[in-house]
Amino acid sequence: MITIRDVAREAGVSVATVSRVLNNSAAVTGETRDVVLKIVEQLGYRPNANAQALASQVSDTIGVVVMDVSDPFFGALVKAVDTVAQRLHKHVLINNSYHQADKERHAIEVLIRQRCNALIVHAKALGDDELSSLMQQVPGMVLINRIVPGFAHRCVCLDNVSGALMATRMLLQHGHQRIGYLGSAHPIEDDDQRRHGWMQAMNEQGITPAESWSACGEPDLQGGEAAMVELLGRNLQLSAVFAYNDSMAAGALAALKDNGIAVPLQLSVVGFDDIPISRYTDPQLSTVRYPIVSMAKLATELALKGAAGQLDHSAQHCFMPTLVRRHSVALRQSVSAVTNSGDLLV
Amino acid sequence: MITIRDVAREAGVSVATVSRVLNNSAAVTGETRDVVLKIVEQLGYRPNANAQALASQVSDTIGVVVMDVSDPFFGALVKAVDTVAQRLHKHVLINNSYHQADKERHAIEVLIRQRCNALIVHAKALGDDELSSLMQQVPGMVLINRIVPGFAHRCVCLDNVSGALMATRMLLQHGHQRIGYLGSAHPIEDDDQRRHGWMQAMNEQGITPAESWSACGEPDLQGGEAAMVELLGRNLQLSAVFAYNDSMAAGALAALKDNGIAVPLQLSVVGFDDIPISRYTDPQLSTVRYPIVSMAKLATELALKGAAGQLDHSAQHCFMPTLVRRHSVALRQSVSAVTNSGDLLV
Repeated sequence: MITIRDVAREAGVSVATVSRVLNNSAAVTGETRDVVLKIVEQLGYRPNANAQALASQVSDTIGVVVMDVSDPFFGALVKAVDTVAQRLHKHVLINNSYHQADKERHAIEVLIRQRCNALIVHAKALGDDELSSLMQQVPGMVLINRIVPGFAHRCVCLDNVSGALMATRMLLQHGHQRIGYLGSAHPIEDDDQRRHGWMQAMNEQGITPAESWSACGEPDLQGGEAAMVELLGRNLQLSAVFAYNDSMAAGALAALKDNGIAVPLQLSVVGFDDIPISRYTDPQLSTVRYPIVSMAKLATELALKGAAGQLDHSAQHCFMPTLVRRHSVALRQSVSAVTNSGDLLV
Repeated sequence: MITIRDVAREAGVSVATVSRVLNNSAAVTGETRDVVLKIVEQLGYRPNANAQALASQVSDTIGVVVMDVSDPFFGALVKAVDTVAQRLHKHVLINNSYHQADKERHAIEVLIRQRCNALIVHAKALGDDELSSLMQQVPGMVLINRIVPGFAHRCVCLDNVSGALMATRMLLQHGHQRIGYLGSAHPIEDDDQRRHGWMQAMNEQGITPAESWSACGEPDLQGGEAAMVELLGRNLQLSAVFAYNDSMAAGALAALKDNGIAVPLQLSVVGFDDIPISRYTDPQLSTVRYPIVSMAKLATELALKGAAGQLDHSAQHCFMPTLVRRHSVALRQSVSAVTNSGDLLV
């Protein structure tokens, strides 16, 4: 690797002079500047980002911590951050944390040690105290999909309970009563909140779902498939399921097809998130839209403002989900009609 | 931000002493070490990764450049790199490059400037000369999905032509002759190679596909849907299509369903990559398996070995794809039989 010393030696000037040229300092003659820049080009020398970061105590890197970048929801989040970063000529350092406290802690620590001045963090396993303490130390740290008391102006979140209420109420309005829930096996508050919304909507109609109406899996295609198979095996006569996310819902559709159960005629399915795949399942998935792209862009802007000490401390950033009606929900009444005539079932 | 100077002042020692304690140097008394470490903990001081990287001229960061991390293929690639990195207590810096030469160049430059000692690069737009020059400068730089002459031992690639030959020959063996190709709108060699394999297999059977048998789109769900709609609009009497990747194939399935065309009875579809979604489409997608996880793990190991100067210069790393037979391909003969009887078509 070519160092600044090689450039200085070759140009016959001091290291300090090379540094001044590269930092566009005025205290260098035009001639010296030309010589140094020529040598820099000849040798292929690259200013060291670590040295620059060390000198200024900040870097031009925006850090992002997500559960798993290969999950389409987090892929969309990271891409939205990257879009803002590219516009501002910054780059993005991504760490996966897999919803595990030690990995979340390590991922954040690594980014702080890299002197990222803006951090967008999706942390679910760490406690409020630990996150508060980190946010106190790093003014450009913003949380996404979580509120830590005292830092609401640096938290961008979604009303998960309302989203689950909307989804379950829509199913109830379609005449469904025995509505199951496909939950995430990750012990995170999103699952608690969506489960709570489902339960509350059911209770509003005087229905108390048995514990057996809910099954858990990894929050992906395979996990949704396995959880749906589990529910089917319990023979509960459910006529609808609400899934923790679209990936699980898409996995459930595959399990239902394997078992010869027509969606939505025999069973209605609603997802959560509205990731692109939900428009490409068969049938297209009715779902709750999580505006993750808007939220991630806002979080990035807040993080950069926070790093610059320009945040509005009274602001709050809680987004409301919306219901997306596609083709995976039908009236429960139509089920018996179709079942009686028989020939419409595939 | 707490600096090493704050720690030194508080502990009543020099900055050099604090540095020696943090680097586990032997030249510090046990008592001094205890005092310094206590202050470090009290103040919440974090050693600066940039300073450490500067001192050693390497960092514990593995850099990855991919087209777009929100694309499931690249998500799987990054996750595989991350899996190796976590095992070795390194972290991963990801840059998107969107198949554009200036962004590829910038993404690689940023990682080099960050002194990443291991780089896994998916670059399609930059020329061989520029990549050669970069690889000469950075011994830990490895290319994935590309061969640059003279650096074959640091290139991990797939035989795209053979994959496309396998897919198209399978369709031909099922009696198909009018086989279309859904190509990527990105001007990259993968598309050229897969198109070439399709063409070659057709030529082997004395068939010369017209230019109109191929349509292009973005290499994602929406792009595949649009390209399939384009082909349908040309009324070419195709009985099968081979798609550039699984996302496009899944998009094509949606377009076919919208148009009342049953897969595989009326039209057979084959994808490429074998990303998870291909097992969750309806019908499940027959595809060409791209062993991206194995390839990305190997690339990571090669990059780390390269950084340590331990590479075998005679090795080559070209993977062979395999055919995955699921349910989106049927015999062409069965099409006319079914069309004649009529009632089996949905």
